[in-house]
Amino acid sequence: MLVVASDAHRAHVSLEIHNGIMSESHESPERADGIAAALAVAGHEMVVPEAVDLDLVRSVHTTEYVDFLSTAWERWSERETGPAAMSFMWPARGFGDARPDDLIGQLGYHSFAADTTIVPGTWEAITAAAAIATTAADRLLDTRATTYGLCRPPGHHASTDQFGGYCYLNNAGIAAQRLLDRGAQRVAIIDVDYHHGNGTQSIFYDRSDVVFVSIHADPREEFPWFAGHADEVGVGPGEGWNLNVPLPRGADRARWFDALDTAAGYLDRSEVDAIVVSLGVDAYVGDPLGTFELTTDDFTVVAQRIAALDRPTVVIQEGGYAGEALGVNVAAFLAGC
Amino acid sequence: MLVVASDAHRAHVSLEIHNGIMSESHESPERADGIAAALAVAGHEMVVPEAVDLDLVRSVHTTEYVDFLSTAWERWSERETGPAAMSFMWPARGFGDARPDDLIGQLGYHSFAADTTIVPGTWEAITAAAAIATTAADRLLDTRATTYGLCRPPGHHASTDQFGGYCYLNNAGIAAQRLLDRGAQRVAIIDVDYHHGNGTQSIFYDRSDVVFVSIHADPREEFPWFAGHADEVGVGPGEGWNLNVPLPRGADRARWFDALDTAAGYLDRSEVDAIVVSLGVDAYVGDPLGTFELTTDDFTVVAQRIAALDRPTVVIQEGGYAGEALGVNVAAFLAGC
Repeated sequence: MLVVASDAHRAHVSLEIHNGIMSESHESPERADGIAAALAVAGHEMVVPEAVDLDLVRSVHTTEYVDFLSTAWERWSERETGPAAMSFMWPARGFGDARPDDLIGQLGYHSFAADTTIVPGTWEAITAAAAIATTAADRLLDTRATTYGLCRPPGHHASTDQFGGYCYLNNAGIAAQRLLDRGAQRVAIIDVDYHHGNGTQSIFYDRSDVVFVSIHADPREEFPWFAGHADEVGVGPGEGWNLNVPLPRGADRARWFDALDTAAGYLDRSEVDAIVVSLGVDAYVGDPLGTFELTTDDFTVVAQRIAALDRPTVVIQEGGYAGEALGVNVAAFLAGC
Repeated sequence: MLVVASDAHRAHVSLEIHNGIMSESHESPERADGIAAALAVAGHEMVVPEAVDLDLVRSVHTTEYVDFLSTAWERWSERETGPAAMSFMWPARGFGDARPDDLIGQLGYHSFAADTTIVPGTWEAITAAAAIATTAADRLLDTRATTYGLCRPPGHHASTDQFGGYCYLNNAGIAAQRLLDRGAQRVAIIDVDYHHGNGTQSIFYDRSDVVFVSIHADPREEFPWFAGHADEVGVGPGEGWNLNVPLPRGADRARWFDALDTAAGYLDRSEVDAIVVSLGVDAYVGDPLGTFELTTDDFTVVAQRIAALDRPTVVIQEGGYAGEALGVNVAAFLAGC
């Protein structure tokens, strides 16, 4: 399979607050390097992406947000000494949503979590990840063969103008938009990451040209807590084009595959021209951030089930934090495509 | 003047994220101890508070929130190793507001900032601060002489069910409610802290029995960024009973006193029976978190201007972070009451 990847992610080493402790992010350079190594062993063809298409990025995200991301580290370093740009307040329940002029206020306005920061290498990494997703979509259209974009950082938590959950630009959304721009009438995004893809959902929530389906841990019990409920079905023209299948923490393999059947059946009826897979592999039994029980071999079966839908498919990397098993699990998935 | 104070605050040593670095909070035990020492030198009578009135607290805050605060540290310590209970995600723009079942999700639901955490001594400290505010209000009604509540932690950023900005229970709001419960028809809260009292505003935003007036740094430029604009005037029965006077960062003394004239004139026309002063002294020229230029002597003038309104007055401590000058500035204010 054609794998699109880049080393540009390596300079992005973010910090995170996780359960009261500040440390280097679980979303580390070793993640993408480990995946690349496993895919090289498996014999996949590796190519670098074309240059990022910022007009495409700005058709998924607001121009204000893209400009903010491109300048935030420089603005931060001019006035602060902290090693990572982040806010310490967010416009939560009851607050207004006017955008402040101050940098730290804007960092709060444009984010929703303290697990994601902006560091010197962030802009280069996130634009490379967007370029990877774009090139993977382009190559799919050129060849009709499934492609894989080794995006890091991931993207599915990023909304039109907010970062968080280790995500900044919504790579899967950018890939879907590229498929639409090049002729697809309706694209499905199926998100199998352990965590709900709140950003992807929100970007396309009022649209019928992108169908979003997600299998994830119930937000009552897991990040991102405030999105991913079963009753979120889309609004306006998007009503009925959003399907969440939340599962309780610790859900077993049988329950997960039942959810996949539900999602696949829904997609099969949705008359989509193409599929984008948001491939988090943190539903793996050994993932430190997950509680589900999928095995390495299961990821091959997941891919086969999606391949049976028989649509042109591009696979975009999202989460997965299980050390050496991460690359092995991604390779197992690609083996089933 | 009668000063109500307690040592119960000392076990509350919180952590905060401030500009990308996690450290012990600026809102330290030394703050209250320094104020108490300065007021003892000034010869004020010091008394301890009566027991906290949790029914009163629950008439200002939701029962769900009070229960959450009372159990959060115990729940945290049963499952986490981090030294301070805090979330890492908040229901920001675009998210739903259903309350999660998970503790970390609830910490996000019940807060809006990463500058405020729950530690083993928090519950004892915040209930003591609420008791101090209540006793200060009671003693005012008993004696008709101005009283001062040395509350720590402060309260004016805390809403009915959210903590943040170093605040958990809204001490000034609790004092105002006590005055109403004991016969006042309308109470004014005048907030002279450098930061907008978003919590107090939100608690009374739809009520006409509590008038809220705040002089503070413009939220476009300063915390709490998403509240405190001049166009926030109240809603429903509260419309017209909320006055924000935001000032640009670095506003000079003349400009600050002009704002005080505006606030005092508004209060004088508001037919209030009593006044609660939210006394932050971080408008001081030497405050590390502020940019205004008030001098120590100015705080005496501020108090005299409020005393000239000739209403029964209770003074509640909010912010102020200028080390040894903090206690001196509070003493200067009380000298003008």
